[in-house]
Formats: sequence, structure tokens, C-alpha cells
Amino acid sequence: MEVMNDAFYMRLALQMAERALGQTGINPVVGCVVVKDGRIVGLGTHLQRGTGHAEVHALNMAGAEAAGSTAYVTLEPCSHYGKTPPCSERLVREGVARVVVACTDPNPQVAGKGIALLRSHGIEVEVGVLEAEALKLNEKFFKFIMTKQPFVTLKTASTLDGKVASKTGDSKWISNEAAREIVHTLRHQHQGIMVGIGTVLADDPSLTTRLPVPGLHPTRIVVDSQLRIPLDAKLLVDGAAPTVIVTTDLADAEKAKAIEALGAKVLRCGSSERVDLDLAMTQLGELEIGSILLEGGGVLNGSMLEAGFVDKVVLFFAPKIIGGLASPGNIVFEGFERMSDAITLDEITVEQLGDNVCITGYPKRG
Amino acid sequence: MEVMNDAFYMRLALQMAERALGQTGINPVVGCVVVKDGRIVGLGTHLQRGTGHAEVHALNMAGAEAAGSTAYVTLEPCSHYGKTPPCSERLVREGVARVVVACTDPNPQVAGKGIALLRSHGIEVEVGVLEAEALKLNEKFFKFIMTKQPFVTLKTASTLDGKVASKTGDSKWISNEAAREIVHTLRHQHQGIMVGIGTVLADDPSLTTRLPVPGLHPTRIVVDSQLRIPLDAKLLVDGAAPTVIVTTDLADAEKAKAIEALGAKVLRCGSSERVDLDLAMTQLGELEIGSILLEGGGVLNGSMLEAGFVDKVVLFFAPKIIGGLASPGNIVFEGFERMSDAITLDEITVEQLGDNVCITGYPKRG
Repeated sequence: MEVMNDAFYMRLALQMAERALGQTGINPVVGCVVVKDGRIVGLGTHLQRGTGHAEVHALNMAGAEAAGSTAYVTLEPCSHYGKTPPCSERLVREGVARVVVACTDPNPQVAGKGIALLRSHGIEVEVGVLEAEALKLNEKFFKFIMTKQPFVTLKTASTLDGKVASKTGDSKWISNEAAREIVHTLRHQHQGIMVGIGTVLADDPSLTTRLPVPGLHPTRIVVDSQLRIPLDAKLLVDGAAPTVIVTTDLADAEKAKAIEALGAKVLRCGSSERVDLDLAMTQLGELEIGSILLEGGGVLNGSMLEAGFVDKVVLFFAPKIIGGLASPGNIVFEGFERMSDAITLDEITVEQLGDNVCITGYPKRG
Repeated sequence: MEVMNDAFYMRLALQMAERALGQTGINPVVGCVVVKDGRIVGLGTHLQRGTGHAEVHALNMAGAEAAGSTAYVTLEPCSHYGKTPPCSERLVREGVARVVVACTDPNPQVAGKGIALLRSHGIEVEVGVLEAEALKLNEKFFKFIMTKQPFVTLKTASTLDGKVASKTGDSKWISNEAAREIVHTLRHQHQGIMVGIGTVLADDPSLTTRLPVPGLHPTRIVVDSQLRIPLDAKLLVDGAAPTVIVTTDLADAEKAKAIEALGAKVLRCGSSERVDLDLAMTQLGELEIGSILLEGGGVLNGSMLEAGFVDKVVLFFAPKIIGGLASPGNIVFEGFERMSDAITLDEITVEQLGDNVCITGYPKRG
């Protein structure tokens, strides 16, 4: 049972926003609920970049009822002319009496200005209702807007001893169906999916989103320092989603041209033998890829994690122990000398999915 | 809220038994609740091998109220003269009207005979109330009584990438306090604790039970094929608990004599260079060690698991990623070629302990 209060309506606004995760590109997901005299009179969610914001949809639904109402918004209403007119002005114009905001917008173009505009027109504004939930909901957006580099979620699926295959390379099967469906949901909720060339050469994957309902396919990103990708790789020819090959200045120009002729983009990141991951993150950000699901082999996963480009870790464990020092691991890197220097996961959550276990957290150093 | 029914009283009997885990040696833990006319009139728990059974304590408390009562017992009452007279006869003699039993006793000396005796005297007997809980509670006893080899619980505490130390050997610190206190509780609940000689040489541990309340210390068991243990090792000189060194026929007789002179026992298991683990389990069983907490290094853990001597696995994970192919792992063995041959954990449970995660399960092959 839930008590009716500000959080009661804000929770619905967050739930509406949450369901739209993955369909707003580099924009945040936002929900809005308009309430008047004890009734919900308007609901709105931002659905797609370049289309109406949550407040606009909700106020459209409310019509004349908006005057004197309370609007619950999961993110501070915008105050700038972007792809759409500012929502703060619309709230003023409709005569909304009170606005409850879950969290402020870190976007320097907004940052408190929306709230100030509302207050300057005599609207009562309350900030911070379900703030923690609202911040987490848009963690990808907040990272990207502040750094211009994508939010990276590292996902692995391994045995309990951290192996992704046996010593002979056999990997059938590790995760159960429930874990696999969550992975595909994560694909839908990220703009990019990143793998290493080893995965492409071994499996020729399509890296699409496959679920009981249609999902959106992320841009496929392959880290391939020597452009070893075959020109008949599914990622280059299936047309299912955009593909970006991340390589270096040293890579063969002819091969790059052939890849681009197939419609993929080639990013050259640095002039050393290995891809400069920092440059790669910046260039992917410039392509407006604001979030990446990293499903690399162990070495790419380890490199990204060690270099500090992983924002969130999602580890699926199957209830198996395969053994074998030569069996490939889920996260492989040179390693730290001292346990106190280990990467530590903050805000650990644990979920049991049938006989699989999912552990999530936010890595920080030492 | 709980409804008053047979399970209501049986649950209390199980709770009393559970708290005595670790203090009954190779005997099962058993609880008994005697109820008459809507009141509990007797409570009893088996406290120590060679002393009164649960039913006896409960019937003593009940006194004359036992006549016409219902007795709830977590394990089938015994029917044989062991270290104490049979409980079934006592229940008959006291005039108990009804006996509710959680599970039958797999001990061939009892196995249904107790129940048959009660019924032959006109006592109504019901079997199977909270049976699954009762079977799990005495899983160590059931294994030992059927096989004469100890029930082995493999416990590890590692990073999320399965390492027990960094590549330089640094292991300070992995588990949190909550996880460590559970480990010491597990020590209390097992009759033996097993490590490899590598652990003794590296850490000179005492392997005692250290908790906010006093606990019982398990017999310390060291797998040491070449009798490399130093004669001034804490395990040999601290007198805190019995110590057993498991070695082979090839080990030096003089060194063995010196170890035994310090009060420890030396078991010779096989004539090859490595300890014959099957023989070791049998000989430890003959010493009436019915349960062992295996806290080995990765190689001993892996050998025991691969050879099928591990009955239960308890994996603590700290929220850390340390990396390093050379960093020692928690379970190390040659490994299987096919994922479908991996050891699989049944009946997985997951518990979050602050920022640590504990996963338990029962290994089975393939």
C-alpha cells in the first residue's frame, strides 16, 4: 500500500520515463504527471529526440485543466530553445500553480535556470522528491552531458570462476534464458554495443536486440586496430544497424575504404599499434553515441576497465565451475600489485535470476 | 503473522535444533516441542553426543503433562540402545498421544523403526511436516551416516574475478567483517577445518573460531604430502584444538614422529606422491570427523572439487576486481574441455552482506 503524496505521483512519472529508456538517444528520459483537485489530468513522456518533451505532452492532455494544477516532472524543465521551445515557459503560460521536480539538470544550458524562471513567475517549486531514483535513471545522460564521452556499461556472462569458455573454447551454454533476455534489454537501452575484433572473427555476431517484443538495435562498434574484419562479416553486410569500426592511423587505407563502401564508419584513434581508447570515447561521443554496452572479450573488457572508461559493471554468473588456467576469463588485464589498489564496485546490487546471479556496481579505483 | 498448526510448532523445534549446529559432533541436531491442550509444556534439544536426546529433555520438562500430549520432533525418534536408551520407548511410556516427525532417519539402525514402534503402541504418527528444512538442517549428518566420509563445505573468499590475492601475493583485505563473521560461524558448525600446507607456510594460521561470543574450534586438518609443516607452527604448538596432518606413506618417519610428539595425529593416505584424497576422507571419517570446512588454497580446493569430495560450496565475493593472470585463484584445477561438463551448483542461494555477496550451492558434475 502506498500513501498518496508527492512521491506517489513522482513514482508514476519515473515509471513512465523508465520504460522509454533507450528510445531518446542522447536525450534524458523524462516523465511528467499533471494533477488537479485530486485527479490526474495529464501524463507525458519524452519519446524521441527532437520531439515534444514530457511536460508538453502532459499539458496537451490536461488542456484547460492545467491552470492551477501541480506538475510532477522527473527532471528540471528546460529553459532554453533547443530542438523544441522551453518547457518552463509553457508551464508558466498554462498557469500551472506548483511544480515538483525530482532532480535538477546538470546540462549547463539548463542548470537551475528552468526552476528560477518558474519561481520568477510565482510558481511554487519543490525540488528533490525521489531525487536518487531520478539521478540513477538518467545516469547515462548525466555522464555524457558532462564529459561528452559515452557512459559505458561493462557486461559479462561467466561461470562462477569467471570463465567465458572452457580451455578448448567451448562456451555452450553459460547464461540462462532470463539472463540473456536482460542482456538484450540492456542492448535496447544503450546507443552503442562494443566488442573486440576477436569476437567478430570467432562468432560473426549480429549484435542486434532480440526480445519477445521488438527492441531498438544499438550501433555496433568493433575495436579492430588492424582492420582484420572480414568484408562479409554480418556487421558490415546485414544492414540491421549502423556499424563503426574503431582502428588506428596505421591501419590499411584500402581496407578502410572497402569497409566504408559497405556503409560502416571507420574511426582512426591514435597512431600507435593499439587503439587509443580515450580518443575512441571522444570520437564516439562526437557521433552522438552517449552510451555503450561493452560486451568485449576479456582483454578489451580489462583494458577499458583498467583505463577508467567503464562507468557501470553488470556481471552475470552461471552456477558453473569450469576450471582451467587457460580458459578465457571475463575480465583480463595486467592487474594491480596491491589488493588496496583493486578496482572496487560501489553501490553493489545482487539479483538472482533462476539459477543465474547478476551483480551490478559502479567501479572506482582503489 | 503465522497460523497455529503443526508447522508452527515444528518450526520452533527446527529453530532450537539449528542453534545447536556444531555442538553435537557426528550426531544430528534435533529439536522437540511437546504441546498439550493449546500450551507448550516441554522443549528439548540434543546438546552433545552421549547426552540426552531432544525428546528426553522435552519430556522431562513436561513431566506429567506428557500424557496425552503431541510431541513435535525434527528427526524420527530413535529405537535402538546407543549411548542413551531409545526415545521411542520413552514416548510410549510417557503416554504421548501423537508424534509429528519432520523427517525419517537414514541411519540404518533407526530407519523407520522408531515410527513403527510408536504406531505399534497406538500412537498417531505424522511424518513430513517441514521435511525439506529438516533434511537440509542435518545434511552433514545424513552424508556421514550414509557414507562414513565427512560432509565437505568448500568456502572461498575472493574478488569478483575469483582471485584470493594480487599477483604479488597481497591479500589485505578481501572480505568484509560480516563475511568474516559468517566464516567463523561456519567453523563452529563443522568438526574439521582443512587447509593445504601452502596456507600454513604462508600464514601460520591458528584456524580457530573467533566470534563476538565463544565458539567451538574445529579439528585442524593440514594436507601436507611431504610433511613440510614447521615444528613450531601454531597448529602444532598452540594447543587450541586437535590437529591432524594428512600425508602419504612416502613422508619422512622421523618428522612424523616429531609431529606426533607434539600431540598432533599423522594420517598416511596412499603411497603416491600426492595425498590420496579418498583415503583421507575415509580415515578422517574413522576419526569421527563428520564434517569439514575446506578453506584451502586454490589448488587444494580445485582438487577436492574435481575429485567429487565437495558437498557444498560457499563463495564470498568482495566487490573488487584485481586482475592479473598470475594472481592466485580461489578454485584452481585442470578444467573441463566442454562447458556442458562443468561442475554445476544446484539450489543456488544468494545473499548480500553489505558490499559482499555470498553464493551457495551444491555441486554436481555436468
